[in-house]
Amino acid sequence: MTVAYDGTDLAGWQIQPQDRSVQGMIEEALKIITKQAIRVIGSGRTDAGVHARGQVAHFRFSPLDHFKVCHSLNGLLPSSIRILEMAPAHPDFHAQLSAIGKEYHYHLCCSDIVLPFDRRYVWHFRHKIDIALLAEAARQFVGEHDFSAFSNAPGHGSHLKHYVRTLYRLDVIQEGKNVRLEFFGNGFLYKMVRNITGMLVAIAIGRRSIDDIQKVFASKDRRMAECAAPPEGLCLMRVVYPERLLSPS
Amino acid sequence: MTVAYDGTDLAGWQIQPQDRSVQGMIEEALKIITKQAIRVIGSGRTDAGVHARGQVAHFRFSPLDHFKVCHSLNGLLPSSIRILEMAPAHPDFHAQLSAIGKEYHYHLCCSDIVLPFDRRYVWHFRHKIDIALLAEAARQFVGEHDFSAFSNAPGHGSHLKHYVRTLYRLDVIQEGKNVRLEFFGNGFLYKMVRNITGMLVAIAIGRRSIDDIQKVFASKDRRMAECAAPPEGLCLMRVVYPERLLSPS
Repeated sequence: MTVAYDGTDLAGWQIQPQDRSVQGMIEEALKIITKQAIRVIGSGRTDAGVHARGQVAHFRFSPLDHFKVCHSLNGLLPSSIRILEMAPAHPDFHAQLSAIGKEYHYHLCCSDIVLPFDRRYVWHFRHKIDIALLAEAARQFVGEHDFSAFSNAPGHGSHLKHYVRTLYRLDVIQEGKNVRLEFFGNGFLYKMVRNITGMLVAIAIGRRSIDDIQKVFASKDRRMAECAAPPEGLCLMRVVYPERLLSPS
Repeated sequence: MTVAYDGTDLAGWQIQPQDRSVQGMIEEALKIITKQAIRVIGSGRTDAGVHARGQVAHFRFSPLDHFKVCHSLNGLLPSSIRILEMAPAHPDFHAQLSAIGKEYHYHLCCSDIVLPFDRRYVWHFRHKIDIALLAEAARQFVGEHDFSAFSNAPGHGSHLKHYVRTLYRLDVIQEGKNVRLEFFGNGFLYKMVRNITGMLVAIAIGRRSIDDIQKVFASKDRRMAECAAPPEGLCLMRVVYPERLLSPS
């Protein structure tokens, strides 16, 4: 299933004992519908405050009337979480382990004023940004790298064997006084997008040099990089899977 | 000054003894800045839940450093309210009485699912809508009419001498499964946009006939029309004034 959520008032994707998490609320709703405790597996966790337009998750249950269950889920879930579609997948499909690509967008607002309608979805960044420098710095992240220095809490995700990832694209798109960073890669370490964004912005305002990027990569030391950008600017746009796993047989 | 606000958690424009209103919060912030009680006059009230991208208001105070006061106001106001600009006007300028035009947009979402990011800004309308019929019905509202039957509580606004208004445009714009109604007129009675939208939608789903519009106009009876569309779909986009009143001299 494809899931969209406004992360503002949610405790992130992963189930929490106390707080309202996306996974927790979907599992709760599924339990009401199926009368069974069903584990829902997402493509990866997103932190509290992070949004999604195309999170992907799976669960095992059959037989299932997908349209009916999707409709019932949306009836039970708060309006901040919506199941956009639900379809049967291949028996080998696994939302996390089968993923071969992910796209994240990070939204910066560099205007004096953030419109009230945008306030939950952008990082309001009051300093003047050098866009050309930002784009030049962004290009240095594209390709295969050991991203250890841009990951918080190494080993945080239990399936991370190493820290090498490939970033296929990191595009800098300016729209008026807003800037959107588009990340597309084969996988992302914990807080990697927000840590890279924090570093890029530090360079774009002149606090760090563009030459620092290679030094930070080489150090493999999280402390050499910059603070993570805040969660509200981040949105998980889509998760890519091999075509053959997207249909039941 | 031009003011934008997300009306979701606000009690509307007009000052209320208990609730958080836009006028009330701006006056409170102005009092902190100027140490004086200053009355802020808007172009008109907007109801609880209604949004604005271009509400206009004025107050009398001099001398005033506009940039500084604008900046300070935004620092004191919640992020759901933003002063987009502030400039000195002609002594004769009056935000309500000088207005010669207003534009409102009403947003309908006719999809099964409303994206979490849109949920505060659209009327989620689950029935299938006949767009051609909606557009045809909308054209009947354009021009000069006595809108009594489409106004709640006649005489509600103390400056309303009569109920004749001119609607210059009422455009129906389809964007995917969303529909935007663009109203531009010389003035609007209380709840007029929401009442017209309610009537248009009743026609577009076949509950009312298009011929009823002229009958309702002729009746001048609010009870002959339909329920008002909900506030969350409505946004005040701009207020138009004579050019000469927009500069100090």
